[in-house]
Amino acid sequence: MNSDLPIGIFDSGVGGLTVYRALHDRLPYEHFIYLGDTARVPYGTKSLSTVERYALENSQFLVEHGIKVLVVACNTASALALPKIRAKIGIPVVGVIGPGGRKAVEVTKDLENPRIGVIATEATVASDAYAAAIRRASANAEIFQTACPLFVPLAEEGWSEEAETHSIAAKYLEPVNEFHPDALVLGCTHYPILRDVIRQTVGENVKLIDSGEATAEEVEELLIKNDSLSDRKAPPTRSLCDDLDHFYVTDAAERFARVAERFLGSPPSKLEAVEVFGADALKIEKVKA
Amino acid sequence: MNSDLPIGIFDSGVGGLTVYRALHDRLPYEHFIYLGDTARVPYGTKSLSTVERYALENSQFLVEHGIKVLVVACNTASALALPKIRAKIGIPVVGVIGPGGRKAVEVTKDLENPRIGVIATEATVASDAYAAAIRRASANAEIFQTACPLFVPLAEEGWSEEAETHSIAAKYLEPVNEFHPDALVLGCTHYPILRDVIRQTVGENVKLIDSGEATAEEVEELLIKNDSLSDRKAPPTRSLCDDLDHFYVTDAAERFARVAERFLGSPPSKLEAVEVFGADALKIEKVKA
Repeated sequence: MNSDLPIGIFDSGVGGLTVYRALHDRLPYEHFIYLGDTARVPYGTKSLSTVERYALENSQFLVEHGIKVLVVACNTASALALPKIRAKIGIPVVGVIGPGGRKAVEVTKDLENPRIGVIATEATVASDAYAAAIRRASANAEIFQTACPLFVPLAEEGWSEEAETHSIAAKYLEPVNEFHPDALVLGCTHYPILRDVIRQTVGENVKLIDSGEATAEEVEELLIKNDSLSDRKAPPTRSLCDDLDHFYVTDAAERFARVAERFLGSPPSKLEAVEVFGADALKIEKVKA
Repeated sequence: MNSDLPIGIFDSGVGGLTVYRALHDRLPYEHFIYLGDTARVPYGTKSLSTVERYALENSQFLVEHGIKVLVVACNTASALALPKIRAKIGIPVVGVIGPGGRKAVEVTKDLENPRIGVIATEATVASDAYAAAIRRASANAEIFQTACPLFVPLAEEGWSEEAETHSIAAKYLEPVNEFHPDALVLGCTHYPILRDVIRQTVGENVKLIDSGEATAEEVEELLIKNDSLSDRKAPPTRSLCDDLDHFYVTDAAERFARVAERFLGSPPSKLEAVEVFGADALKIEKVKA
Protein backbone atom coordinates (compact mmCIF):
# COMPACT_ATOMS: atom_id res chain seq x y z
CA MET A 1 0.00 0.00 0.00
CA ASN A 2 1.57 3.22 -1.19
CA SER A 3 0.83 5.82 1.47
CA ASP A 4 1.07 8.70 -1.03
CA LEU A 5 -1.86 7.45 -3.08
CA PRO A 6 -5.35 8.88 -2.57
CA ILE A 7 -8.28 7.07 -1.00
CA GLY A 8 -10.90 5.98 -3.56
CA ILE A 9 -14.61 6.35 -2.85
CA PHE A 10 -17.52 5.35 -5.01
CA ASP A 11 -21.24 5.75 -4.64
CA SER A 12 -24.22 5.36 -6.94
CA GLY A 13 -24.60 9.14 -6.91
CA VAL A 14 -24.38 12.10 -4.54
CA GLY A 15 -25.20 10.36 -1.24
CA GLY A 16 -21.62 9.16 -0.73
CA LEU A 17 -20.57 12.78 -0.35
CA THR A 18 -21.52 12.49 3.33
CA VAL A 19 -19.02 9.63 3.58
CA TYR A 20 -16.43 11.76 1.77
CA ARG A 21 -17.10 14.54 4.28
CA ALA A 22 -16.66 12.17 7.23
CA LEU A 23 -13.38 10.83 5.78
CA HIS A 24 -12.15 14.32 5.01
CA ASP A 25 -12.98 15.55 8.52
CA ARG A 26 -11.13 12.66 10.14
CA LEU A 27 -8.22 12.42 7.68
CA PRO A 28 -7.61 15.95 6.35
CA TYR A 29 -4.05 15.09 5.27
CA GLU A 30 -5.34 12.39 2.89
CA HIS A 31 -6.43 13.06 -0.70
CA PHE A 32 -9.54 11.56 -2.25
CA ILE A 33 -10.90 10.40 -5.58
CA TYR A 34 -14.69 10.21 -5.63
CA LEU A 35 -16.73 8.51 -8.33
CA GLY A 36 -20.50 9.12 -8.40
CA ASP A 37 -22.20 6.74 -10.82
CA THR A 38 -24.89 9.30 -11.65
CA ALA A 39 -25.65 7.70 -15.03
CA ARG A 40 -26.93 4.57 -13.30
CA VAL A 41 -28.28 5.85 -9.98
CA PRO A 42 -30.22 4.55 -8.06
CA TYR A 43 -28.80 1.10 -7.25
CA GLY A 44 -31.41 0.34 -4.57
CA THR A 45 -34.08 -0.74 -7.04
CA LYS A 46 -31.73 -2.87 -9.16
CA SER A 47 -31.02 -6.59 -9.08
CA LEU A 48 -28.02 -8.32 -7.47
CA SER A 49 -26.24 -9.08 -10.74
CA THR A 50 -26.70 -5.53 -12.02
CA VAL A 51 -25.39 -3.97 -8.79
CA GLU A 52 -22.39 -6.33 -8.80
CA ARG A 53 -21.57 -5.42 -12.38
CA TYR A 54 -21.82 -1.67 -11.77
CA ALA A 55 -19.81 -1.91 -8.52
CA LEU A 56 -17.02 -3.83 -10.26
CA GLU A 57 -16.82 -1.31 -13.08
CA ASN A 58 -16.64 1.58 -10.62
CA SER A 59 -13.99 -0.20 -8.54
CA GLN A 60 -11.84 -0.93 -11.58
CA PHE A 61 -12.09 2.69 -12.71
CA LEU A 62 -10.79 3.90 -9.34
CA VAL A 63 -8.07 1.24 -9.08
CA GLU A 64 -6.81 2.23 -12.54
CA HIS A 65 -6.46 5.81 -11.28
CA GLY A 66 -4.24 4.60 -8.42
CA ILE A 67 -5.72 4.40 -4.92
CA LYS A 68 -4.47 2.81 -1.70
CA VAL A 69 -7.84 1.77 -0.28
CA LEU A 70 -11.35 1.59 -1.73
CA VAL A 71 -14.35 2.86 0.24
CA VAL A 72 -17.69 1.59 -1.05
CA ALA A 73 -19.85 4.48 0.15
CA CYS A 74 -23.04 3.09 -1.39
CA ASN A 75 -25.13 1.06 1.06
CA THR A 76 -26.67 -1.08 -1.68
CA ALA A 77 -23.27 -1.93 -3.18
CA SER A 78 -21.88 -2.55 0.33
CA ALA A 79 -24.75 -4.92 1.05
CA LEU A 80 -24.56 -6.83 -2.22
CA ALA A 81 -21.21 -6.51 -3.95
CA LEU A 82 -18.31 -6.55 -1.44
CA PRO A 83 -17.39 -10.24 -1.99
CA LYS A 84 -17.21 -9.76 -5.79
CA ILE A 85 -15.18 -6.57 -5.45
CA ARG A 86 -12.74 -8.12 -2.95
CA ALA A 87 -12.27 -11.15 -5.21
CA LYS A 88 -11.44 -8.93 -8.16
CA ILE A 89 -9.23 -6.09 -6.90
CA GLY A 90 -5.99 -6.32 -5.00
CA ILE A 91 -6.34 -3.53 -2.43
CA PRO A 92 -8.25 -3.27 0.87
CA VAL A 93 -11.97 -2.60 0.50
CA VAL A 94 -14.16 -1.01 3.20
CA GLY A 95 -17.95 -0.86 2.95
CA VAL A 96 -20.28 1.30 5.06
CA ILE A 97 -22.54 -1.39 6.51
CA GLY A 98 -20.03 -3.36 8.60
CA PRO A 99 -18.62 -0.22 10.28
CA GLY A 100 -22.14 1.18 10.89
CA GLY A 101 -23.39 -2.05 12.43
CA ARG A 102 -20.25 -2.52 14.59
CA LYS A 103 -20.41 1.08 15.82
CA ALA A 104 -24.04 0.64 16.93
CA VAL A 105 -22.98 -2.40 18.96
CA GLU A 106 -19.94 -0.57 20.39
CA VAL A 107 -21.92 2.42 21.69
CA THR A 108 -24.45 0.11 23.39
CA LYS A 109 -21.95 -2.43 24.72
CA ASP A 110 -22.71 -1.65 28.39
CA LEU A 111 -26.32 -2.71 27.94
CA GLU A 112 -27.34 -6.32 28.48
CA ASN A 113 -29.89 -6.35 25.65
CA PRO A 114 -29.12 -3.40 23.44
CA ARG A 115 -31.97 -2.22 21.24
CA ILE A 116 -30.70 -1.10 17.85
CA GLY A 117 -32.85 0.56 15.20
CA VAL A 118 -31.85 0.84 11.56
CA ILE A 119 -33.39 3.24 9.03
CA ALA A 120 -32.39 2.82 5.39
CA THR A 121 -33.76 2.52 1.85
CA GLU A 122 -36.24 -0.24 1.02
CA ALA A 123 -33.51 -2.22 -0.76
CA THR A 124 -31.04 -2.02 2.15
CA VAL A 125 -33.71 -3.04 4.65
CA ALA A 126 -34.77 -5.94 2.40
CA SER A 127 -31.14 -7.08 2.11
CA ASP A 128 -30.98 -7.48 5.92
CA ALA A 129 -27.30 -6.54 5.69
CA TYR A 130 -27.28 -4.19 8.71
CA ALA A 131 -29.07 -6.76 10.85
CA ALA A 132 -26.50 -9.38 9.83
CA ALA A 133 -23.60 -7.00 10.64
CA ILE A 134 -25.11 -6.17 14.03
CA ARG A 135 -25.73 -9.84 14.87
CA ARG A 136 -22.13 -10.71 13.97
CA ALA A 137 -20.98 -8.15 16.57
CA SER A 138 -23.62 -8.84 19.23
CA ALA A 139 -25.48 -12.05 19.95
CA ASN A 140 -28.18 -10.42 22.07
CA ALA A 141 -29.00 -7.15 20.31
CA GLU A 142 -32.64 -6.58 19.50
CA ILE A 143 -33.00 -5.10 16.05
CA PHE A 144 -35.76 -3.13 14.31
CA GLN A 145 -35.46 -1.93 10.72
CA THR A 146 -37.65 0.35 8.64
CA ALA A 147 -37.42 2.18 5.32
CA CYS A 148 -37.90 5.94 4.84
CA PRO A 149 -38.27 6.25 1.04
CA LEU A 150 -38.97 10.01 0.92
CA PHE A 151 -35.84 10.94 2.92
CA VAL A 152 -33.56 10.69 -0.13
CA PRO A 153 -35.57 13.07 -2.37
CA LEU A 154 -36.12 15.41 0.61
CA ALA A 155 -32.36 15.55 1.24
CA GLU A 156 -31.58 16.12 -2.44
CA GLU A 157 -34.23 18.86 -2.56
CA GLY A 158 -32.39 20.50 0.34
CA TRP A 159 -35.49 20.38 2.58
CA SER A 160 -33.57 19.67 5.79
CA GLU A 161 -35.63 21.98 8.02
CA GLU A 162 -39.05 22.25 6.36
CA ALA A 163 -42.24 21.54 8.30
CA GLU A 164 -43.15 18.81 5.78
CA THR A 165 -39.85 17.03 6.47
CA HIS A 166 -40.59 17.05 10.21
CA SER A 167 -44.08 15.73 9.56
CA ILE A 168 -42.86 12.97 7.22
CA ALA A 169 -40.11 12.04 9.69
CA ALA A 170 -42.71 11.79 12.49
CA LYS A 171 -44.72 9.37 10.33
CA TYR A 172 -41.77 7.20 9.25
CA LEU A 173 -40.13 7.14 12.69
CA GLU A 174 -43.25 6.38 14.71
CA PRO A 175 -42.55 2.61 14.71
CA VAL A 176 -38.91 3.39 15.59
CA ASN A 177 -40.02 5.40 18.62
CA GLU A 178 -42.40 2.59 19.61
CA PHE A 179 -39.42 0.21 19.52
CA HIS A 180 -37.52 2.51 21.97
CA PRO A 181 -34.03 2.05 20.50
CA ASP A 182 -30.83 2.76 22.41
CA ALA A 183 -29.04 3.47 19.14
CA LEU A 184 -30.32 4.26 15.65
CA VAL A 185 -28.21 3.61 12.57
CA LEU A 186 -28.58 6.13 9.72
CA GLY A 187 -28.24 3.35 7.16
CA CYS A 188 -28.44 5.49 4.04
CA THR A 189 -25.78 7.99 3.02
CA HIS A 190 -28.40 10.71 2.45
CA TYR A 191 -29.83 10.53 5.95
CA PRO A 192 -27.09 12.51 7.76
CA ILE A 193 -28.35 15.53 5.76
CA LEU A 194 -31.61 15.18 7.74
CA ARG A 195 -29.79 14.48 11.01
CA ASP A 196 -31.32 17.43 12.91
CA VAL A 197 -34.86 16.45 11.95
CA ILE A 198 -34.20 12.81 12.88
CA ARG A 199 -32.62 13.89 16.17
CA GLN A 200 -35.64 16.00 17.09
CA THR A 201 -38.02 13.18 16.13
CA VAL A 202 -36.37 10.39 18.13
CA GLY A 203 -35.20 12.54 21.06
CA GLU A 204 -31.85 13.18 22.73
CA ASN A 205 -31.48 9.77 24.38
CA VAL A 206 -31.08 7.75 21.22
CA LYS A 207 -27.47 7.48 19.99
CA LEU A 208 -27.43 8.29 16.28
CA ILE A 209 -24.91 6.29 14.27
CA ASP A 210 -23.68 7.87 11.05
CA SER A 211 -22.33 4.97 8.98
CA GLY A 212 -20.04 7.38 7.15
CA GLU A 213 -18.37 8.50 10.37
CA ALA A 214 -18.02 4.88 11.53
CA THR A 215 -16.47 4.02 8.16
CA ALA A 216 -13.98 6.89 8.42
CA GLU A 217 -12.89 5.56 11.83
CA GLU A 218 -12.29 2.06 10.41
CA VAL A 219 -10.41 3.45 7.39
CA GLU A 220 -8.12 5.36 9.76
CA GLU A 221 -7.50 2.20 11.82
CA LEU A 222 -6.75 0.23 8.65
CA LEU A 223 -4.27 2.83 7.41
CA ILE A 224 -2.54 2.94 10.80
CA LYS A 225 -2.36 -0.86 10.93
CA ASN A 226 -0.86 -1.01 7.42
CA ASP A 227 1.45 1.95 8.13
CA SER A 228 -0.11 3.73 5.18
CA LEU A 229 -1.26 7.05 6.55
CA SER A 230 -0.17 9.86 4.29
CA ASP A 231 2.86 11.72 5.68
CA ARG A 232 1.68 14.89 4.02
CA LYS A 233 0.67 17.68 6.34
CA ALA A 234 -2.80 19.09 5.75
CA PRO A 235 -2.29 22.58 4.30
CA PRO A 236 -3.81 25.23 6.56
CA THR A 237 -6.29 26.17 3.84
CA ARG A 238 -7.43 22.59 3.22
CA SER A 239 -11.20 22.51 2.87
CA LEU A 240 -13.95 20.24 1.54
CA CYS A 241 -14.03 19.99 -2.25
CA ASP A 242 -10.76 21.87 -2.77
CA ASP A 243 -8.53 20.98 -5.72
CA LEU A 244 -6.61 18.28 -3.83
CA ASP A 245 -9.65 16.02 -4.26
CA HIS A 246 -10.84 14.82 -7.64
CA PHE A 247 -14.50 14.09 -8.38
CA TYR A 248 -15.81 12.04 -11.29
CA VAL A 249 -19.40 11.43 -12.32
CA THR A 250 -20.74 9.18 -15.05
CA ASP A 251 -23.39 11.75 -16.10
CA ALA A 252 -25.05 15.09 -15.37
CA ALA A 253 -22.12 16.86 -13.71
CA GLU A 254 -24.06 20.08 -13.31
CA ARG A 255 -26.76 18.56 -11.13
CA PHE A 256 -24.07 16.76 -9.08
CA ALA A 257 -22.30 20.05 -8.44
CA ARG A 258 -25.57 21.68 -7.34
CA VAL A 259 -26.46 18.91 -4.86
CA ALA A 260 -22.82 18.73 -3.67
CA GLU A 261 -23.05 22.40 -2.79
CA ARG A 262 -26.25 21.71 -0.81
CA PHE A 263 -24.61 18.80 1.02
CA LEU A 264 -21.10 20.17 1.59
CA GLY A 265 -21.40 23.92 1.35
CA SER A 266 -19.31 24.17 -1.81
CA PRO A 267 -19.21 22.44 -5.20
CA PRO A 268 -16.15 20.33 -6.17
CA SER A 269 -13.40 22.42 -7.70
CA LYS A 270 -12.27 19.41 -9.79
CA LEU A 271 -15.24 17.63 -11.36
CA GLU A 272 -15.20 15.55 -14.53
CA ALA A 273 -17.78 13.46 -16.41
CA VAL A 274 -16.44 10.04 -17.47
CA GLU A 275 -17.46 6.67 -18.89
CA VAL A 276 -16.72 3.66 -16.68
CA PHE A 277 -17.56 0.94 -19.22
CA GLY A 278 -14.24 -0.87 -19.63
CA ALA A 279 -13.32 -3.85 -21.79
CA ASP A 280 -14.51 -6.21 -19.07
CA ALA A 281 -17.84 -4.44 -18.83
CA LEU A 282 -18.32 -4.89 -22.56
CA LYS A 283 -17.65 -8.59 -22.28
CA ILE A 284 -20.26 -8.91 -19.55
CA GLU A 285 -22.83 -7.04 -21.65
CA LYS A 286 -22.13 -9.27 -24.62
CA VAL A 287 -22.70 -12.43 -22.64
CA LYS A 288 -25.98 -11.07 -21.29
CA ALA A 289 -27.25 -9.68 -24.62
CA MET B 1 -49.21 -0.60 -40.63
CA ASN B 2 -50.66 -3.97 -39.64
CA SER B 3 -53.81 -3.25 -37.64
CA ASP B 4 -53.55 -6.55 -35.74
CA LEU B 5 -50.26 -5.62 -34.12
CA PRO B 6 -50.12 -4.17 -30.60
CA ILE B 7 -49.27 -0.59 -29.68
CA GLY B 8 -45.77 -0.26 -28.17
CA ILE B 9 -45.16 2.01 -25.18
CA PHE B 10 -41.90 2.72 -23.43
CA ASP B 11 -41.03 4.76 -20.39
CA SER B 12 -37.98 5.09 -18.17
CA GLY B 13 -39.91 3.26 -15.45
CA VAL B 14 -43.37 3.08 -13.93
CA GLY B 15 -44.63 6.60 -14.72
CA GLY B 16 -45.69 5.66 -18.25
CA LEU B 17 -48.31 3.36 -16.75
CA THR B 18 -50.61 6.40 -16.53
CA VAL B 19 -50.17 6.77 -20.32
CA TYR B 20 -50.90 3.05 -20.74
CA ARG B 21 -54.06 3.53 -18.65
CA ALA B 22 -55.18 6.47 -20.80
CA LEU B 23 -54.55 4.49 -24.01
CA HIS B 24 -56.30 1.44 -22.61
CA ASP B 25 -59.34 3.50 -21.54
CA ARG B 26 -59.69 5.11 -24.96
CA LEU B 27 -58.76 2.08 -27.09
CA PRO B 28 -59.86 -1.01 -25.14
CA TYR B 29 -59.89 -3.19 -28.28
CA GLU B 30 -56.16 -2.56 -28.83
CA HIS B 31 -53.40 -4.64 -27.25
CA PHE B 32 -50.27 -3.15 -25.73
CA ILE B 33 -46.62 -3.95 -25.13
CA TYR B 34 -45.08 -1.82 -22.38
CA LEU B 35 -41.38 -1.54 -21.69
CA GLY B 36 -40.26 0.11 -18.43
CA ASP B 37 -36.50 0.76 -18.45
CA THR B 38 -36.27 0.29 -14.70
CA ALA B 39 -32.57 -0.62 -14.85
CA ARG B 40 -31.72 2.87 -16.05
CA VAL B 41 -34.44 5.05 -14.51
CA PRO B 42 -34.47 8.05 -14.06
CA TYR B 43 -33.76 9.66 -17.43
CA GLY B 44 -34.41 13.22 -16.19
CA THR B 45 -30.97 13.64 -14.65
CA LYS B 46 -29.09 12.15 -17.61
CA SER B 47 -27.43 13.85 -20.57
CA LEU B 48 -28.83 14.20 -24.09
CA SER B 49 -26.58 11.54 -25.63
CA THR B 50 -27.37 9.03 -22.87
CA VAL B 51 -31.14 9.57 -23.14
CA GLU B 52 -30.95 9.22 -26.94
CA ARG B 53 -29.03 5.96 -26.65
CA TYR B 54 -31.43 4.47 -24.09
CA ALA B 55 -34.50 5.62 -26.06
CA LEU B 56 -33.17 4.04 -29.26
CA GLU B 57 -32.46 0.74 -27.53
CA ASN B 58 -35.96 0.67 -26.03
CA SER B 59 -37.55 1.56 -29.37
CA GLN B 60 -35.64 -1.17 -31.20
CA PHE B 61 -36.63 -3.72 -28.56
CA LEU B 62 -40.32 -2.91 -29.07
CA VAL B 63 -40.08 -2.78 -32.87
CA GLU B 64 -38.44 -6.21 -32.88
CA HIS B 65 -41.44 -7.52 -30.94
CA GLY B 66 -43.78 -6.24 -33.68
CA ILE B 67 -45.80 -3.06 -33.00
CA LYS B 68 -47.85 -0.80 -35.28
CA VAL B 69 -47.13 2.49 -33.52
CA LEU B 70 -44.64 3.56 -30.85
CA VAL B 71 -45.71 5.75 -27.93
CA VAL B 72 -42.83 7.42 -26.10
CA ALA B 73 -44.50 7.79 -22.71
CA CYS B 74 -41.42 9.27 -21.05
CA ASN B 75 -41.41 13.08 -21.00
CA THR B 76 -37.61 13.29 -20.97
CA ALA B 77 -37.26 10.95 -23.95
CA SER B 78 -40.10 12.79 -25.72
CA ALA B 79 -38.33 16.10 -25.15
CA LEU B 80 -34.89 14.91 -26.24
CA ALA B 81 -34.97 11.81 -28.40
CA LEU B 82 -37.92 11.90 -30.86
CA PRO B 83 -35.85 13.04 -33.88
CA LYS B 84 -33.30 10.23 -33.37
CA ILE B 85 -36.02 7.62 -32.87
CA ARG B 86 -37.96 8.77 -35.96
CA ALA B 87 -34.79 8.72 -38.06
CA LYS B 88 -34.05 5.16 -36.98
CA ILE B 89 -37.33 3.24 -36.93
CA GLY B 90 -39.86 2.85 -39.74
CA ILE B 91 -43.19 3.17 -37.88
CA PRO B 92 -45.14 6.18 -36.57
CA VAL B 93 -43.85 7.59 -33.27
CA VAL B 94 -45.95 9.65 -30.83
CA GLY B 95 -44.45 11.46 -27.84
CA VAL B 96 -46.36 12.91 -24.88
CA ILE B 97 -45.17 16.51 -25.04
CA GLY B 98 -46.63 17.58 -28.40
CA PRO B 99 -50.10 16.20 -27.59
CA GLY B 100 -50.03 17.71 -24.07
CA GLY B 101 -48.99 21.14 -25.37
CA ARG B 102 -51.52 21.10 -28.22
CA LYS B 103 -54.35 20.03 -25.91
CA ALA B 104 -53.62 22.94 -23.55
CA VAL B 105 -53.91 25.33 -26.48
CA GLU B 106 -57.09 23.63 -27.73
CA VAL B 107 -58.95 23.92 -24.41
CA THR B 108 -58.07 27.62 -24.15
CA LYS B 109 -58.62 28.52 -27.81
CA ASP B 110 -61.55 30.86 -27.07
CA LEU B 111 -59.32 33.12 -24.96
CA GLU B 112 -57.41 35.94 -26.57
CA ASN B 113 -54.32 35.52 -24.41
CA PRO B 114 -54.50 32.07 -22.88
CA ARG B 115 -52.41 31.56 -19.76
CA ILE B 116 -50.91 28.07 -19.70
CA GLY B 117 -49.01 26.63 -16.75
CA VAL B 118 -46.76 23.58 -17.00
CA ILE B 119 -45.58 21.47 -14.06
CA ALA B 120 -42.94 18.83 -14.76
CA THR B 121 -39.60 17.45 -13.60
CA GLU B 122 -36.57 19.74 -13.42
CA ALA B 123 -35.18 18.20 -16.61
CA THR B 124 -38.39 18.62 -18.61
CA VAL B 125 -38.75 22.23 -17.48
CA ALA B 126 -35.11 22.92 -18.35
CA SER B 127 -35.61 21.39 -21.81
CA ASP B 128 -38.33 23.99 -22.52
CA ALA B 129 -40.02 21.34 -24.69
CA TYR B 130 -43.60 22.01 -23.47
CA ALA B 131 -43.18 25.75 -23.95
CA ALA B 132 -41.94 25.11 -27.50
CA ALA B 133 -44.90 22.79 -28.24
CA ILE B 134 -47.37 25.34 -26.87
CA ARG B 135 -45.80 28.20 -28.84
CA ARG B 136 -45.97 26.15 -32.04
CA ALA B 137 -49.73 25.83 -31.50
CA SER B 138 -50.43 29.34 -30.21
CA ALA B 139 -48.54 32.54 -30.92
CA ASN B 140 -50.04 34.49 -28.03
CA ALA B 141 -50.16 32.02 -25.12
CA GLU B 142 -48.50 33.16 -21.92
CA ILE B 143 -46.55 30.31 -20.37
CA PHE B 144 -45.30 29.62 -16.85
CA GLN B 145 -43.32 26.48 -16.00
CA THR B 146 -42.16 25.10 -12.67
CA ALA B 147 -40.70 21.83 -11.35
CA CYS B 148 -42.20 19.75 -8.52
CA PRO B 149 -39.33 17.33 -7.70
CA LEU B 150 -41.02 15.60 -4.74
CA PHE B 151 -44.19 14.70 -6.69
CA VAL B 152 -42.57 11.63 -8.30
CA PRO B 153 -41.42 9.98 -5.04
CA LEU B 154 -44.73 10.93 -3.36
CA ALA B 155 -46.67 9.25 -6.18
CA GLU B 156 -44.47 6.14 -6.07
CA GLU B 157 -44.87 6.00 -2.28
CA GLY B 158 -48.64 6.00 -2.86
CA TRP B 159 -49.12 9.18 -0.81
CA SER B 160 -51.87 10.61 -3.00
CA GLU B 161 -54.05 11.90 -0.14
CA GLU B 162 -51.66 12.53 2.75
CA ALA B 163 -51.58 15.89 4.52
CA GLU B 164 -47.87 16.23 3.67
CA THR B 165 -48.65 15.86 -0.02
CA HIS B 166 -51.21 18.66 0.21
CA SER B 167 -48.74 20.83 2.06
CA ILE B 168 -45.93 20.16 -0.44
CA ALA B 169 -48.32 20.78 -3.35
CA ALA B 170 -49.35 24.11 -1.80
CA LYS B 171 -45.68 25.11 -1.64
CA TYR B 172 -44.78 24.00 -5.18
CA LEU B 173 -47.95 25.36 -6.77
CA GLU B 174 -47.93 28.77 -5.06
CA PRO B 175 -46.16 30.42 -8.05
CA VAL B 176 -48.60 28.60 -10.38
CA ASN B 177 -51.56 30.08 -8.52
CA GLU B 178 -49.93 33.52 -8.62
CA PHE B 179 -49.68 33.13 -12.40
CA HIS B 180 -53.48 32.46 -12.58
CA PRO B 181 -53.39 29.88 -15.38
CA ASP B 182 -56.42 29.01 -17.52
CA ALA B 183 -54.97 25.54 -18.12
CA LEU B 184 -52.27 23.55 -16.31
CA VAL B 185 -50.35 20.77 -18.06
CA LEU B 186 -49.42 17.78 -15.89
CA GLY B 187 -46.11 17.43 -17.72
CA CYS B 188 -44.82 14.37 -15.90
CA THR B 189 -46.38 10.94 -16.22
CA HIS B 190 -46.45 10.51 -12.43
CA TYR B 191 -48.47 13.65 -11.76
CA PRO B 192 -51.92 12.25 -12.71
CA ILE B 193 -51.57 10.01 -9.64
CA LEU B 194 -51.67 13.23 -7.57
CA ARG B 195 -54.45 14.74 -9.70
CA ASP B 196 -56.90 15.20 -6.81
CA VAL B 197 -54.35 17.03 -4.67
CA ILE B 198 -53.33 19.23 -7.60
CA ARG B 199 -57.00 19.92 -8.42
CA GLN B 200 -57.70 21.00 -4.84
CA THR B 201 -54.60 23.19 -4.77
CA VAL B 202 -55.21 25.09 -8.01
CA GLY B 203 -59.01 25.20 -7.78
CA GLU B 204 -61.88 24.14 -10.04
CA ASN B 205 -61.42 26.84 -12.66
CA VAL B 206 -58.08 25.66 -13.99
CA LYS B 207 -58.34 23.08 -16.79
CA LEU B 208 -55.97 20.22 -15.96
CA ILE B 209 -54.32 18.65 -18.99
CA ASP B 210 -53.18 15.05 -18.60
CA SER B 211 -50.54 14.56 -21.31
CA GLY B 212 -51.29 10.83 -21.32
CA GLU B 213 -54.96 11.40 -22.16
CA ALA B 214 -54.02 13.92 -24.85
CA THR B 215 -51.57 11.38 -26.28
CA ALA B 216 -54.24 8.65 -26.34
CA GLU B 217 -56.50 10.99 -28.36
CA GLU B 218 -53.77 11.64 -30.92
CA VAL B 219 -52.91 7.94 -31.17
CA GLU B 220 -56.58 7.20 -31.91
CA GLU B 221 -56.65 9.90 -34.61
CA LEU B 222 -53.47 8.51 -36.14
CA LEU B 223 -54.85 4.96 -36.25
CA ILE B 224 -58.10 6.16 -37.80
CA LYS B 225 -56.22 8.20 -40.41
CA ASN B 226 -54.03 5.20 -41.31
CA ASP B 227 -57.00 2.83 -41.22
CA SER B 228 -55.14 0.78 -38.62
CA LEU B 229 -57.56 0.50 -35.72
CA SER B 230 -57.76 -3.07 -34.53
CA ASP B 231 -60.91 -4.80 -35.75
CA ARG B 232 -60.95 -6.96 -32.64
CA LYS B 233 -63.84 -6.41 -30.29
CA ALA B 234 -62.87 -5.69 -26.70
CA PRO B 235 -63.83 -8.77 -24.71
CA PRO B 236 -66.42 -7.93 -22.05
CA THR B 237 -63.96 -8.87 -19.30
CA ARG B 238 -61.12 -6.74 -20.70
CA SER B 239 -59.44 -4.88 -17.85
CA LEU B 240 -56.20 -3.02 -17.11
CA CYS B 241 -53.14 -5.29 -16.87
CA ASP B 242 -54.97 -8.40 -18.09
CA ASP B 243 -53.08 -11.02 -20.07
CA LEU B 244 -53.76 -9.40 -23.44
CA ASP B 245 -51.10 -6.80 -22.56
CA HIS B 246 -47.45 -7.69 -22.13
CA PHE B 247 -45.16 -5.80 -19.77
CA TYR B 248 -41.37 -5.85 -19.84
CA VAL B 249 -38.93 -4.26 -17.41
CA THR B 250 -35.16 -4.07 -17.60
CA ASP B 251 -34.75 -4.73 -13.84
CA ALA B 252 -36.51 -5.15 -10.49
CA ALA B 253 -39.80 -6.61 -11.74
CA GLU B 254 -41.13 -7.06 -8.21
CA ARG B 255 -40.96 -3.37 -7.36
CA PHE B 256 -42.53 -2.52 -10.73
CA ALA B 257 -45.45 -4.85 -10.00
CA ARG B 258 -45.95 -3.25 -6.58
CA VAL B 259 -46.02 0.32 -7.91
CA ALA B 260 -48.16 -0.78 -10.89
CA GLU B 261 -50.72 -2.06 -8.43
CA ARG B 262 -50.67 1.29 -6.63
CA PHE B 263 -51.09 3.17 -9.92
CA LEU B 264 -53.57 0.91 -11.75
CA GLY B 265 -55.29 -1.12 -9.07
CA SER B 266 -53.80 -4.42 -10.20
CA PRO B 267 -50.32 -5.72 -11.08
CA PRO B 268 -49.57 -6.86 -14.67
CA SER B 269 -50.54 -10.47 -15.27
CA LYS B 270 -47.77 -10.80 -17.88
CA LEU B 271 -44.51 -9.24 -16.64
CA GLU B 272 -41.00 -10.18 -17.73
CA ALA B 273 -37.51 -8.85 -16.95
CA VAL B 274 -35.37 -8.42 -20.09
CA GLU B 275 -32.10 -6.98 -21.38
CA VAL B 276 -32.44 -4.32 -24.09
CA PHE B 277 -28.74 -4.01 -25.01
CA GLY B 278 -28.69 -5.05 -28.68
CA ALA B 279 -25.84 -5.29 -31.17
CA ASP B 280 -26.22 -1.64 -32.08
CA ALA B 281 -26.12 -0.60 -28.44
CA LEU B 282 -22.83 -2.46 -28.04
CA LYS B 283 -21.36 -0.59 -30.98
CA ILE B 284 -22.33 2.73 -29.40
CA GLU B 285 -20.77 1.74 -26.06
CA LYS B 286 -17.55 0.70 -27.77
CA VAL B 287 -17.19 4.04 -29.52
CA LYS B 288 -17.72 5.89 -26.26
CA ALA B 289 -15.50 3.66 -24.09
